[in-house]
Amino acid sequence: MLKYQQVAAEIEQYINQHDLKQGNKLPVLEQLMSQYAVSKSTITKALELLERKGVIFQLRGSGIFVRRHNRPGYMSLFSTQGFKSNLGDRVLTSDVLDVSVTKPDVTVAQNLGIDVTDDVYRVERVRFVDGEVFCYEESYYVKAIVPYLNREIVADSIFDYVQGALGVTIGFSDMYMQVGRLTETEAGYLGLQTDDPTLRIETIFHLSNGKPFDYSRITYHYEHSQFVVQANGPYM
Amino acid sequence: MLKYQQVAAEIEQYINQHDLKQGNKLPVLEQLMSQYAVSKSTITKALELLERKGVIFQLRGSGIFVRRHNRPGYMSLFSTQGFKSNLGDRVLTSDVLDVSVTKPDVTVAQNLGIDVTDDVYRVERVRFVDGEVFCYEESYYVKAIVPYLNREIVADSIFDYVQGALGVTIGFSDMYMQVGRLTETEAGYLGLQTDDPTLRIETIFHLSNGKPFDYSRITYHYEHSQFVVQANGPYM
Repeated sequence: MLKYQQVAAEIEQYINQHDLKQGNKLPVLEQLMSQYAVSKSTITKALELLERKGVIFQLRGSGIFVRRHNRPGYMSLFSTQGFKSNLGDRVLTSDVLDVSVTKPDVTVAQNLGIDVTDDVYRVERVRFVDGEVFCYEESYYVKAIVPYLNREIVADSIFDYVQGALGVTIGFSDMYMQVGRLTETEAGYLGLQTDDPTLRIETIFHLSNGKPFDYSRITYHYEHSQFVVQANGPYM
Repeated sequence: MLKYQQVAAEIEQYINQHDLKQGNKLPVLEQLMSQYAVSKSTITKALELLERKGVIFQLRGSGIFVRRHNRPGYMSLFSTQGFKSNLGDRVLTSDVLDVSVTKPDVTVAQNLGIDVTDDVYRVERVRFVDGEVFCYEESYYVKAIVPYLNREIVADSIFDYVQGALGVTIGFSDMYMQVGRLTETEAGYLGLQTDDPTLRIETIFHLSNGKPFDYSRITYHYEHSQFVVQANGPYM
């Protein structure tokens, strides 16, 4: 974790521990610099990160303010995308159905920008939040980038492993969302009926150099999933 | 529009007009500065905005690259939130069902952080994209901030009016998403059946000073709406 990320995490922790509310004012830049003993550029980057994450908002000339949504039970749409550590108090567990090396079909290969003859890891999981079935997930990892996965890693957080053990830097992701109806197989995994409503999200995760390394398809249990997105302006 | 926003818009236009692909390299910072005849701080802010919007990604030490998703027919989740100008080639029209001044119920008042005795504008619209029914929308605007609305404004873009004519600066928004089933009334508006699947998004829009001014509830036609979200790392 870089210094500015660490400072950002500490500020976020402070906000949560003191249960600060939206609109509460944080100390001015100079005070934060001395409090965390960091340079102006580090604190600025930390604040930018927190702004992007929806933890604070900055009003030029007025100061730095806490930003917090007030609906318990809504999970951040971004934090559910493979980031165990970001689910807060809630416990995420997985039933691992498959971890295997295989060849991608045309759709998977296209989404990963690889050839159908290249190897991928296929991971299939049913995921639970606080013991309640949350989603059914099928993911494909480019083996040239993620050379090894096993059931133990997959039962936990794949991204923690990829970033930690492999030292890979995750950059950005494109998420494609659609509402539809469950197939019989999906309904079976989620404990719902065929044709029940569902939110499907396909995500392509890229390394910081822009290379796709993970393509996942998640089918959510519509009664056990609700999401919050904290969007930032200005819009143009 | 501020200078850096204008430069960002020009760079985005350049990318679109030249149909640049993801991974295409843009000129280095110094060249962009001289090309757009702006300072380093202006170009840096323009690039940050484009990065946040998912138009570019920057790789320290390597350069500035185009970021583009490749799925036609997917609309940006953020650009559909009241931003007519951002729908690209697609034509957004509205059937205005109601524009009236009223008192908010408890839920609306809570979401807007106002009292039930305060005035709000209530706007009810069915919205169409390229002539196809897209969503049913109910919105509430704090009258103390948006003192006047009429059918003409509401048939067009309320946000363009609010930002242009009223000079109000829109800051950030909290979006709450949930999949459910259509009520009979909603199904009527959308031309679907009662109990058909739907994505519902409630959004609270804030001014840049953090004050909520618009609370909207949108019910999407599940067959006519698919969204893309371009998320940014790094994740912590």
